[in-house]
Amino acid sequence: MTQPLTDVAIAQAHTLEPITEIALRAGIPPEALITFGPHKAKVDITRLPERREAGKLVLVTGMSPTPAGEGKSTVLIGLADAMTRRGLNAAAALREPSQGPVMGIKGGAAGGGYSQIVPMEDINLHFTGDFHAIAAATNTLAAIVDNHVQHGNALGIDVRRIVWQRCLDVNDRSLRGVITGLGGTAHGTPRETGFTITAASEIMAVLCLASDLEDLKARLGRLTVAFTFDGAPVTADDLGATGALAALMKEAINPNLVQTLGGTPAYVHGGPFANIAHGCNSLIATRVALDHADIVLTEAGFGSDLGAEKFFDIKARHGGLDVAGVVVVATIRSLKYNGGMARTDLTTESLDHLREGVKNLARHVANIQQFGATPIVALNLFTSDTEAEREFMRAWARDYHVALEECEVWARGGAGAEKLAQVVLDNLSKGSSPLYDPRRGVEASIEALAKRIYRADKVEYAPKALKDLAVLRENGWDELPVCISKTQYSFSDEPTALGAPTGHTLHVRELIPRTGAGFIVVLTGAVMTMPGLPARPAAEGIDIGADGKISGLF
Amino acid sequence: MTQPLTDVAIAQAHTLEPITEIALRAGIPPEALITFGPHKAKVDITRLPERREAGKLVLVTGMSPTPAGEGKSTVLIGLADAMTRRGLNAAAALREPSQGPVMGIKGGAAGGGYSQIVPMEDINLHFTGDFHAIAAATNTLAAIVDNHVQHGNALGIDVRRIVWQRCLDVNDRSLRGVITGLGGTAHGTPRETGFTITAASEIMAVLCLASDLEDLKARLGRLTVAFTFDGAPVTADDLGATGALAALMKEAINPNLVQTLGGTPAYVHGGPFANIAHGCNSLIATRVALDHADIVLTEAGFGSDLGAEKFFDIKARHGGLDVAGVVVVATIRSLKYNGGMARTDLTTESLDHLREGVKNLARHVANIQQFGATPIVALNLFTSDTEAEREFMRAWARDYHVALEECEVWARGGAGAEKLAQVVLDNLSKGSSPLYDPRRGVEASIEALAKRIYRADKVEYAPKALKDLAVLRENGWDELPVCISKTQYSFSDEPTALGAPTGHTLHVRELIPRTGAGFIVVLTGAVMTMPGLPARPAAEGIDIGADGKISGLF
Repeated sequence: MTQPLTDVAIAQAHTLEPITEIALRAGIPPEALITFGPHKAKVDITRLPERREAGKLVLVTGMSPTPAGEGKSTVLIGLADAMTRRGLNAAAALREPSQGPVMGIKGGAAGGGYSQIVPMEDINLHFTGDFHAIAAATNTLAAIVDNHVQHGNALGIDVRRIVWQRCLDVNDRSLRGVITGLGGTAHGTPRETGFTITAASEIMAVLCLASDLEDLKARLGRLTVAFTFDGAPVTADDLGATGALAALMKEAINPNLVQTLGGTPAYVHGGPFANIAHGCNSLIATRVALDHADIVLTEAGFGSDLGAEKFFDIKARHGGLDVAGVVVVATIRSLKYNGGMARTDLTTESLDHLREGVKNLARHVANIQQFGATPIVALNLFTSDTEAEREFMRAWARDYHVALEECEVWARGGAGAEKLAQVVLDNLSKGSSPLYDPRRGVEASIEALAKRIYRADKVEYAPKALKDLAVLRENGWDELPVCISKTQYSFSDEPTALGAPTGHTLHVRELIPRTGAGFIVVLTGAVMTMPGLPARPAAEGIDIGADGKISGLF
Repeated sequence: MTQPLTDVAIAQAHTLEPITEIALRAGIPPEALITFGPHKAKVDITRLPERREAGKLVLVTGMSPTPAGEGKSTVLIGLADAMTRRGLNAAAALREPSQGPVMGIKGGAAGGGYSQIVPMEDINLHFTGDFHAIAAATNTLAAIVDNHVQHGNALGIDVRRIVWQRCLDVNDRSLRGVITGLGGTAHGTPRETGFTITAASEIMAVLCLASDLEDLKARLGRLTVAFTFDGAPVTADDLGATGALAALMKEAINPNLVQTLGGTPAYVHGGPFANIAHGCNSLIATRVALDHADIVLTEAGFGSDLGAEKFFDIKARHGGLDVAGVVVVATIRSLKYNGGMARTDLTTESLDHLREGVKNLARHVANIQQFGATPIVALNLFTSDTEAEREFMRAWARDYHVALEECEVWARGGAGAEKLAQVVLDNLSKGSSPLYDPRRGVEASIEALAKRIYRADKVEYAPKALKDLAVLRENGWDELPVCISKTQYSFSDEPTALGAPTGHTLHVRELIPRTGAGFIVVLTGAVMTMPGLPARPAAEGIDIGADGKISGLF
């Protein structure tokens, strides 16, 4: 058997269309297109015509992720290309990859095989600079906070209660907990703080939820950076930082346009992680896509318990989006893994493990139904899948009354998702809705999610979390939606509890008001907002030739 | 009197030429142009024809900088435009502004008035992302170092001797001294370290001294990040990080092309500070400019004691550049300030202060002559300058046998530098050279600079510096050129010693091997490699309208 090509090799062998051609086909007026070289562009949102928003929105999510890989982005891209092949005016709306995981475990995040967005090297490395702009704004604000204290502290900031953290787009565990301001009075006030990864920063969420530049600016102004000695919140506005932060975001707010290998326009904008952040690409990009395409495939990171839930309860609620269909990506390998099979055995047929593991998928399907949306299971085929396993899945779908269709997007691109596209189009519906009403308070929101989505029995608050709840109430932040940070590997907050666990307890560690984003981050279990690198980082395999050609991204 | 327009207002009122037109005029082949929107581009160095390097190189430096401002970049740009007005094929090669000072004191660094490079808002804010790419590479390498220690430390890195610092493009004194790795064994090893500003980082120097992608990669591989328990240096290559770092720099290595208000092509690439780094734009950009233009105006930050010295001893030595002329920018206000006049009195005529202050200029002129180059003094006029003061300067130049010409570039652009351009062209010479021979050792190099350029009587080494010297010798780094970090305000290491001090002592605090850049950083006096923000940061005045129009940059 010949060695399959790597993702980067497939992408490099592809002849890309000029981005001006893609934009033309997408209906973006030339005067709104800011090109970044021949194959990337930003869409200047101040130069777009009135909103039309006539497109149908299809959300792609997945079963619980596993080390075996489910190919969620790959399915999304293949499905979008299948729609394009049918002659539909389709578009994809995806998140931008974070460089942290690119250098860490992933080595790239732009689909795979013949279902990729391109130029994949550029998209994976810096892209158009949005993440860096977010970090620049975040770190400039941090400098302004410490500088205010250094120069007399007129606002009376309690240095022990500076809550604004710096961020960087890097996997660096050593930055989780730091002391800054060492060296004497000329060098600031020593205090304990930390860095989050840019994908989990509040300004990332602000970018992704803003409706335009004015709204972005208003949200930046509302960022809570500290509390005074009297316990009053201090905002970016109080520090006079809002205009500068917004100026730093002037290009980042414009959605990026690239193409899939099948020539579908892809808006790739904003990249919050779905475990430790809200997990959806920008509202602006989704709206631009809906304005210009008839059908838009968008993603929410990880499963129904993370990205999809946050899509409905945070992004769609806020942006007034209706979800016409939800694709839940699953693989036989990952189902068997969730059924307790060892990772090394996954290529062996096992209906027993499949039968056990499909409970995980069933729960994701049921969760999606709770949001009033129609789930469609996309079974992403691998060569090791046996006919008996595939038949088991078809039978399961019939018994369970859920639409299921196989696809082969890695090897065949859009051609491998034509039937899936038909099933999606046949099942479009209307009237999706959020799960909980935030006006009932943060505790009620958490309880609703814990019981109905995670299927926990109860919620336990650590002492710090109880104090945080009091702060939320004091400041009138108790009616904001919640953004729960939880492991992606389990419905519970314990990563090893695979399948479809019940009877567990959700452990709430800390609640962080994100007054600019407009939600409350709820840290559960042991989840970290700054990842680390593995023993052998993907960075070790990445290289570039004298001709500028990159290798080692996959 | 009407209020003069701000720099950003003048720049915004200007109709820019498409960058494709500028590139055409500059002789850059279309296939080598990567546009970033309509008015910025990168030049793909892998797609340029063979080097021609036929242009003459004119270096613009200044007297010792003062709070009154000398307008060095403004003169450079006005002079370049004056050359263009004469029908010459001219180009400018400048540094990229750092966002730290833009948010701090400066509020912008792209010339001023009618002598600016545009689009100035973009150039001042993120530009094409080069600084962010440098920070990403720097911080990725830092993460890889700590990660190596975390996962078994196979190389035997002495955690107390990790010398690689993180960096950010922000003025943030609180990041000078930090402890990272707090929180327990899962979160790294606690250790003391710090952040430099990106403009002073080693990868910035590597970018600015590399001749092509291969050389960049070789330099990245040679970066010293730590020492082992046995005292052996550990490099980026030892950690397997070189390829990933080079991949992160794949776009940053290409010079940026913009235009002046007078339509001159301007290569704006790389931005090391001249006090705490080597202060020159990239060698690649200077070479591309020399390959395509007949006359190239380039800058070296601050005065002859900082940027210009480093230009000759580091950049020109390494790159084999010959400097055909050196413009030394001075103003009557700054001369009076250097003569002891209070800042608030500078608009009052005072020949006495001028007579005293001109000693500062005389020393810069004499310093330039030591490099075998011809100095030309550009007297940048202000409305407060009196005829008597101007006549004094003309007489001084006659007595001193130095070419001097007035210019009015802020108010009149290139038209205000036509005579200056003529004087520069009339004085072109050949055969510039470095000041010292690094093979005589680091101490000899420092002594040569201290005595001949700073006019110190002696050099004193702090205990730490003596230890550092021993490390340099042990590792065979003693014959690298030196990059002295020193205050820009004085020839000495004491910022308040204005004018032309003699008899002082140069205090060497620390020596840092930069094995990737290929020089030894010598910290003197109290100079900091991470600036702080002032009591009222420029950020407070920066804003952006709903239409995306930026204000408050100046």
